[in-house]
Amino acid sequence: MKVLIINGPNINLLGIREKGIYGSISYSEMCKYLYESSKELSVDIDIVQSNIEGEIINFIQKAYNKYDALVINPGAYTHYSIAIYDAIKAVNIPTVEVHISNIHSREEFRRKSVTAAACIGQISGFGLYGYIMALMALIKNKKNI
Amino acid sequence: MKVLIINGPNINLLGIREKGIYGSISYSEMCKYLYESSKELSVDIDIVQSNIEGEIINFIQKAYNKYDALVINPGAYTHYSIAIYDAIKAVNIPTVEVHISNIHSREEFRRKSVTAAACIGQISGFGLYGYIMALMALIKNKKNI
Amino acid sequence: MKVLIINGPNINLLGIREKGIYGSISYSEMCKYLYESSKELSVDIDIVQSNIEGEIINFIQKAYNKYDALVINPGAYTHYSIAIYDAIKAVNIPTVEVHISNIHSREEFRRKSVTAAACIGQISGFGLYGYIMALMALIKNKKNI
Amino acid sequence: MKVLIINGPNINLLGIREKGIYGSISYSEMCKYLYESSKELSVDIDIVQSNIEGEIINFIQKAYNKYDALVINPGAYTHYSIAIYDAIKAVNIPTVEVHISNIHSREEFRRKSVTAAACIGQISGFGLYGYIMALMALIKNKKNI
Amino acid sequence: MKVLIINGPNINLLGIREKGIYGSISYSEMCKYLYESSKELSVDIDIVQSNIEGEIINFIQKAYNKYDALVINPGAYTHYSIAIYDAIKAVNIPTVEVHISNIHSREEFRRKSVTAAACIGQISGFGLYGYIMALMALIKNKKNI
Amino acid sequence: MKVLIINGPNINLLGIREKGIYGSISYSEMCKYLYESSKELSVDIDIVQSNIEGEIINFIQKAYNKYDALVINPGAYTHYSIAIYDAIKAVNIPTVEVHISNIHSREEFRRKSVTAAACIGQISGFGLYGYIMALMALIKNKKNI
Amino acid sequence: MKVLIINGPNINLLGIREKGIYGSISYSEMCKYLYESSKELSVDIDIVQSNIEGEIINFIQKAYNKYDALVINPGAYTHYSIAIYDAIKAVNIPTVEVHISNIHSREEFRRKSVTAAACIGQISGFGLYGYIMALMALIKNKKNI
Amino acid sequence: MKVLIINGPNINLLGIREKGIYGSISYSEMCKYLYESSKELSVDIDIVQSNIEGEIINFIQKAYNKYDALVINPGAYTHYSIAIYDAIKAVNIPTVEVHISNIHSREEFRRKSVTAAACIGQISGFGLYGYIMALMALIKNKKNI
Amino acid sequence: MKVLIINGPNINLLGIREKGIYGSISYSEMCKYLYESSKELSVDIDIVQSNIEGEIINFIQKAYNKYDALVINPGAYTHYSIAIYDAIKAVNIPTVEVHISNIHSREEFRRKSVTAAACIGQISGFGLYGYIMALMALIKNKKNI
Amino acid sequence: MKVLIINGPNINLLGIREKGIYGSISYSEMCKYLYESSKELSVDIDIVQSNIEGEIINFIQKAYNKYDALVINPGAYTHYSIAIYDAIKAVNIPTVEVHISNIHSREEFRRKSVTAAACIGQISGFGLYGYIMALMALIKNKKNI
Amino acid sequence: MKVLIINGPNINLLGIREKGIYGSISYSEMCKYLYESSKELSVDIDIVQSNIEGEIINFIQKAYNKYDALVINPGAYTHYSIAIYDAIKAVNIPTVEVHISNIHSREEFRRKSVTAAACIGQISGFGLYGYIMALMALIKNKKNI
Amino acid sequence: MKVLIINGPNINLLGIREKGIYGSISYSEMCKYLYESSKELSVDIDIVQSNIEGEIINFIQKAYNKYDALVINPGAYTHYSIAIYDAIKAVNIPTVEVHISNIHSREEFRRKSVTAAACIGQISGFGLYGYIMALMALIKNKKNI
Repeated sequence: MKVLIINGPNINLLGIREKGIYGSISYSEMCKYLYESSKELSVDIDIVQSNIEGEIINFIQKAYNKYDALVINPGAYTHYSIAIYDAIKAVNIPTVEVHISNIHSREEFRRKSVTAAACIGQISGFGLYGYIMALMALIKNKKNI
Repeated sequence: MKVLIINGPNINLLGIREKGIYGSISYSEMCKYLYESSKELSVDIDIVQSNIEGEIINFIQKAYNKYDALVINPGAYTHYSIAIYDAIKAVNIPTVEVHISNIHSREEFRRKSVTAAACIGQISGFGLYGYIMALMALIKNKKNI
Repeated sequence: MKVLIINGPNINLLGIREKGIYGSISYSEMCKYLYESSKELSVDIDIVQSNIEGEIINFIQKAYNKYDALVINPGAYTHYSIAIYDAIKAVNIPTVEVHISNIHSREEFRRKSVTAAACIGQISGFGLYGYIMALMALIKNKKNI
Repeated sequence: MKVLIINGPNINLLGIREKGIYGSISYSEMCKYLYESSKELSVDIDIVQSNIEGEIINFIQKAYNKYDALVINPGAYTHYSIAIYDAIKAVNIPTVEVHISNIHSREEFRRKSVTAAACIGQISGFGLYGYIMALMALIKNKKNI
Repeated sequence: MKVLIINGPNINLLGIREKGIYGSISYSEMCKYLYESSKELSVDIDIVQSNIEGEIINFIQKAYNKYDALVINPGAYTHYSIAIYDAIKAVNIPTVEVHISNIHSREEFRRKSVTAAACIGQISGFGLYGYIMALMALIKNKKNI
Repeated sequence: MKVLIINGPNINLLGIREKGIYGSISYSEMCKYLYESSKELSVDIDIVQSNIEGEIINFIQKAYNKYDALVINPGAYTHYSIAIYDAIKAVNIPTVEVHISNIHSREEFRRKSVTAAACIGQISGFGLYGYIMALMALIKNKKNI
Repeated sequence: MKVLIINGPNINLLGIREKGIYGSISYSEMCKYLYESSKELSVDIDIVQSNIEGEIINFIQKAYNKYDALVINPGAYTHYSIAIYDAIKAVNIPTVEVHISNIHSREEFRRKSVTAAACIGQISGFGLYGYIMALMALIKNKKNI
Repeated sequence: MKVLIINGPNINLLGIREKGIYGSISYSEMCKYLYESSKELSVDIDIVQSNIEGEIINFIQKAYNKYDALVINPGAYTHYSIAIYDAIKAVNIPTVEVHISNIHSREEFRRKSVTAAACIGQISGFGLYGYIMALMALIKNKKNI
Repeated sequence: MKVLIINGPNINLLGIREKGIYGSISYSEMCKYLYESSKELSVDIDIVQSNIEGEIINFIQKAYNKYDALVINPGAYTHYSIAIYDAIKAVNIPTVEVHISNIHSREEFRRKSVTAAACIGQISGFGLYGYIMALMALIKNKKNI
Repeated sequence: MKVLIINGPNINLLGIREKGIYGSISYSEMCKYLYESSKELSVDIDIVQSNIEGEIINFIQKAYNKYDALVINPGAYTHYSIAIYDAIKAVNIPTVEVHISNIHSREEFRRKSVTAAACIGQISGFGLYGYIMALMALIKNKKNI
Repeated sequence: MKVLIINGPNINLLGIREKGIYGSISYSEMCKYLYESSKELSVDIDIVQSNIEGEIINFIQKAYNKYDALVINPGAYTHYSIAIYDAIKAVNIPTVEVHISNIHSREEFRRKSVTAAACIGQISGFGLYGYIMALMALIKNKKNI
Repeated sequence: MKVLIINGPNINLLGIREKGIYGSISYSEMCKYLYESSKELSVDIDIVQSNIEGEIINFIQKAYNKYDALVINPGAYTHYSIAIYDAIKAVNIPTVEVHISNIHSREEFRRKSVTAAACIGQISGFGLYGYIMALMALIKNKKNI
C-alpha cells in the first residue's frame, strides 16, 4: 500500500511551536519516525508539507492514481477550507484526518472540522502516534475491501 | 494495563441498527472480537453497556482506582451529556472516545462532541477497529509516562 | 396488532401535574381508559412508563420483534433526546409520537421535537384522546401495507 | 357539526406533486374520500383550497358564525404566515392543523409551525387519513364541551 | 391633500378579534370615525382593506400619481413582507405606518417591522387614534416641503 | 394635564449633531417650540435632558405622583437600557416614546427598542412634531379613561 | 419550445421603481423587448405578472403540461416564499430564476434565494438581458436532453 | 419542617473531583455536616443522590406529600434537564436550587439554569454552606406563609 | 466585619414598583430591616443606592481598603454592565450578588448575569432575606480564611 | 473584447470530480470548448486555473489594464474569500461570476457567495454553458456603455 | 494643538486593578507621564476621567469648539455604549480610541468596539504608550489637512 | 532592531485600489516612505508582500531567529486566517498588526480580527503612518524588556 501523508500549515514548526500543546520533537524527527514506523507496517509512505492551502490541494490532486490512500493533517485549514474538502471528495481516495492535539478540547473554533466530512474518519489527540494509527486504520480498511 | 470499555445507548443493537451506517456484526460478536483482540495486545479489558446516561456515569465513577484507562463510546450522549463530561473530568482516568461511524460527516448535531473535551483524544469513523486503535493509543500513552 | 405505549417523564403525575395544561384525570384512570378503548379497536396494548431516558430506550429495544408498533409520549425528552431518536430508528418499528398538550403553542423550547423525526408522525394537543388517534393511525397504516 | 376544511398552496397538485412524499391519489379523489368519510362520522364538511395566503384568511374569516370547527392544512404557509395565525386567533373557532407528510422529519425549515400555535392541536404524517383524525378529534372535543 | 389608508390582514375583524388587544369598536365604525375625523383635518381619504399581501401591493401601486400620501397598517405582513417594503419604495409616496396595538411590547416576532424602513415613520400603540396622528403627521410633513 | 418630557443623550446637541438626520433646529429652539405648542394644547409641560442613563431614571422616579404622563426620547439608551425600562414599569405613569428620526430605517442596532415595551406606544420618524403627537396621544388617552 | 415568463411583485413598476437599481425602461417596453428577442431565438413565450404570491403559484401550476419551461423572477418572494419553491418542485418543469439587479451585492436579506433551489439555475445582475440569457440556457438545456 | 436534599450527578465524588473547584471535603463528610447543621436549625432532612436524571425525577415525585420542601443540586443536569424542571413544576413543592461552585463564573454552558426557573430561587458559589443557606431560606419562606 | 451594601437602579422604589414581583415593603423599611438584622449578625453595614451605573462603580472603588466585603444588587445593570464587572474585579473585595426576585424564572434577558462572574456567588429569589443570606455567606467565607 | 477566464480550486478535475454534479467532460475539453465558442462570439479569451487563493488574486491583479473583463469561477473560495472579493473591487474590471452547478440548491454553506458582491452578476447552474452566457453578458454590458 | 484625553470607567484604578493585564503604574503616575510626554510633542492636553457613561458624553460635548482632537479610552463602555458612539459622531471632532491592553486577545465580549466606528482609528495593546501614539497620530492627521 | 514588515493581499495595489478608502499613494511610494522613516527611527526593516495566505505564513516562519519583531498587515486574511494566527503564535516573535483603514468602521465582517489575538496589539485607521506607529511601539516594547 502506498500512502501520501500531507501536513498543513505550521506543522513544519513542530518542536518550536507551542510545545505545551504539540510536544518538543522536531518536524524532521517526526518524519524520520513516520518513515521508520511505516516500514514496520509494510506501508510505503511519502510525506509532504505546505503552508499554502492551494498547494495542499495540489498534493491531493496529484495523488490521484498514484497513491492508495491519504493521511492528512490540514492544520488550521481543517476549520475553514471547503476547497480542501472538495479536493478530497474529488479524487475519491480513502483519506484519514489526523490531529496531533485533541482539537475537541481546545478553542471553540478548533472543535469543528470542515475537512473530516470528506474522510473515512478522524483521529485527534494522540500526538505523532496518531499518524501511525491512521496508517493502521488504512491497512485495516483496505483488507476489508 | 486494565481498561474498561463503556458503550452507550443503542450500541447493543449493533447488527440490527441502521446497518448501512453501523455494519452487520452483532454486539456480542463485537464484544468477542474486542476480548480477543485486546488479549493480543496484552490489555485486560472489561466491557459494559448501558442506555442510561447516569449508569454510564456510574461505570465511570466505579472505574476510579480500578482501571488504568477508559475507552468510551457515549453514543448519542456524546452530543449533549455535560454530566458524562463532568464524570470523566472527576475521576481523571486517561480516556479515549471512540465512534464507530464518522460523526464528522453525519447530521449537523452529531458533529460536535461535548464529552471528547474531557478525553485524551477521539477516534471516529473506523468501525469496530476504532476500539482497538483506542487501546493501542492507551498503551502508547502509558509507555510515554 | 400488538402495540406498546411508552410514557416518558412526569406523565405518571397526570391529575397532579399542572392541571390547567394536562387535565385532572389521574394516570391510572388514563391507563384504564386506554386499555378499554384499545379493546374496542381490537388492538392489544401494553403500557409502560419511566422517568429515565435510558429506560425508555430499553422499552423501545425490548419491543423489537415483540410489538407491531409503538406509541410514544417522550415527555420533556422529546426536545433533546437524540438517544431516544436513535433507538426508534434502530428498532425500525412503526412509531407514533403523542403529546397531551399542544406543544406547538407552549414555550419556545417545547415547540421542536427531536424524536418525531424518527416516527411516522406526531399527534399533539388532543389530550388523552391523542393516544386513541395514534392507535387508529397505526391500524390504518398497517392495513395500507 | 359543520366543519370547513381549508387546504393551502400546492395541495391541489396531489397525485402530481412529489409522489414519494405526498402519495399518488389526486386532489379530487382525496376530496371524494373526505366527503364520504365525513358522512360516516356524521360531520357536515365543506372543502376549499387556495394558493393565496390572503384567500386562506378570507376562508377563515367567512367561517365565523358559519362553521363549528376548522381543519386546516396551510401547506408551506405553515412555516411563515403570522397572518394566518392571526386569523385563526381572531375568529376563535376550534381548529386542527393537518399535514399529509411528517413535517418533523423533513427540511429544517419545515419543522416549525407558526400557525399550529393558534390551533387546538396538530396532526402530522398520516397521509390523507390525518384529515379524518382531525374530524374525530373535533367530534371528541365538541362532546367534552 | 388626498390620502389612501390601506389596512392589511384581519384588521377588518376589528371588534371581533382579540378585544383585549384591539378594542371593541367594529371595522365599519372605525372607517366612519376615520372619514369624519379626516374631514375635520381637511384631508380627503379613501380606505381599502385586504387580507392578501399582493393586493396590498396593488393598492400601493395604484396610488401612484393618485394620492399625495399613504397611511398603512400592514397587519402581520409588517413582520415579513419585503414585497410590501419594495412597493412603498417603488412608488415613492410619503407613507406612515400605523399599528393599533403597541407592537414593541408584544411577542418577539412582532417587535420588528420590515415595512417601516420604507416609510417616513411609524406610530404604534395608540389605538384608532394612531391613524389620525398619521394624517396629522402627513399634513405637517407636507407643509414643511 | 401635567407632562414631563425627558430627553436622553445627545439630544441637547440638536442642530449641531448630524443635521442630515436630526435637522438644523437647535435644542433651545426645540424647547421653545414644545413649550409654545403644548400651551396651545393646554398641556402643562416640563422638559429635562440628561446624558446620564441613571439621571433619566431619576427623572422618571421623581415624576411619580407629580406628573400625569411622560414623553421620553431615550436616545441611544432606547436600544439597551433595561434599567430605564424597569423605571417606567416601576412608576407606572402613562409614557410615550418618541424618536426624531425613523429608527426603523437606520442601522440594525437602532431598529429594536428595549424601552418602548414599557410604554403605551412609540412614535418614530416625524422630527420634532413627534413630541406634539405624543402629547396629543396622551390627551386622547386621558379622555378615554 | 414554449416558455412562460413569470414576473413577481413590483416588476410591473419597471421604469418607475428605484431607477438607479432597476433602470429606466418601462415594464411594457421590457415585454416588447422580450417578445421580439425570443422570436429571434425561435422560442414561443408568454409573459405574466402578479403581485400576489399565490397567483404566481397559480401561474406555475397552470403551466403544467402547457409549457416546456419557465423563466421566473419572483421579486421579493425570492427570499421567503417556500410556497413558490414547492410549486416549482411540484410541477417539475425546467425553470430558470432571473434577477434584474445583482441580488448578491444588495441588502443581506436579498442575498439568499429560497426559490432558486427548485430551479435549474439562477441568473442575477444582467438587467433585462438576464431573461434572454435564461431563454438561451433553456434552449441549450433542451438540446442536451 | 421536613426537607429532602437531592444531589445530582458527580456530587458523590466530592473530595475526589476537581478539588480546585469543589473543595477537598468528601461526600460522606458533607452529608454528616448537613445532618448536623440541619439539626441545629431544627429541620428534619433526608439526603439522596443519583447520577441518573430520571432517578432525580423519581426522588422529586416521591417527595410529593412527604416533604415540605426540596433542596436540589442538579449538577450538570441544571443546564439541560427540562424533565427535572417539569418534575419540580409538577409536584409544586417549594424548592431551592444550590450550586457548590459559582456557575456564573465558569464555562458559558454552565451559566444558564434550566431548572432554577421552577424553584423559589438559586444559591450559587458558597460551597457546602450553600445548602445551609437554602435551609434557612426555606425556614424563612415557611414562616412568611 | 465591615460590609457595604450597594443597591442599583429602581431598588429605591421598593414597595411602589411591581409589588407582585418585589413585595410591598418600602425601601426605607428594607434598610431598617437590614441595619437591624446585620447588628444581630455583628456585621457593621452601610447601605448606598444609585440609579447611575457609574456611581455604583464609584461606590465599589471607594470601598477599596475601607470595607471587608460587598453585597451588591446591581438591578438591571446585572445584565449588561461590563463596567461594574470590571470594577468588582479591580478592587478585588469579596462580593456577593443578591437579587430580590428569582431572575432565573423571569424574562430571557434577566436570566444571565454579567456581574456575578466577578463575585464569590449569587443569591436570587429570596426577597429581602437574600441580603441577610449574603451577609451570613460573607461571615462564613471570612472564617474559612 | 479581451476577457480573462479564471478558474478556481478543483475545477481542473472536471470529468474526474463528482460527475453527478459536475458532468463528465474533462477540463481540457472544457477549455477547448470555451476557446472555440468565444471565437464565434468574437471574444478573445485566455483561461487560467489555480488551486491557490492568492494566485487567483495574482491573476486578477495582473489583468489590470490588460483585459476588458473577467469571468471567474472561484470554486470553493466563493464562500469565504474576502481577499478575492477585495481583489475584484481593487482592479475594478467588469467581472461575471460563474458556477457550473446550481450552488443555490446544494449544501447550506455553498448557498452564499462572498465574491459575487464585487461582480456585475452571477450565473449559476448551467454547466459549462454558463461561461458562454457570461461572455455574452459582458458583450451586452460593453455595448451598453 | 489642544487635545482632551478622556478616560472611562476603572481606568483611575490603574496600578491597583488586575496588574497582570494593566501594569503597576498608578493613575496619577500615568497622568504625569502623559502631561510630560505631550509637552515634548508640543501638544496641549487635558485629562479627565469618569466612571459614568453620561459624564463621558458630557466631556465629549463640552469639547466641542474647545479642543482640536480627542483621545478616548472608553473602558468597558467600548463594548456597548451606542450613546458614546453617538456623542463622538455628533461633535465631529477627530478622535482616536486607545486601549491599554490588547482587547483583541481577551474575552469574546471585549473584542468588538461599538465606539471605534465613530473614531479615526483605534490603538490597542501598547500600554500607556498607546496614548502617546494617539497624540502622534493626531499630529500627523492634522498636518495632512 | 531588525523588523520584517509583511503585507498581505491587495496591499500591493495601493494607489489603484479604492482610493477613497486607501489613499492615492502607490505601493512602491509607500515602501520608500517606510524605508526612509524607519532609518530615522534607527530600525532596520525589510518589506515583503504576498497575496497568498501560505506565503505570508512562510514569511513569518522564516523570520524565526532572523528578526526581532514583525509588523503585519494581513489584509483580508485578518478576518479568517486561523493559519496566520497559528504561525504568529508558533514563532513567538513580538508582532504588531496594522491596518491602513479603520476596520472598526467598515463592513461587519471586517470588524473582527482573528490574527490580532496573536499579536502585542493592533493599530487601525491611521493610513501609512500606522506602520511607523507600529515600529515606534516595537522600539518602546523592546526598551521595556
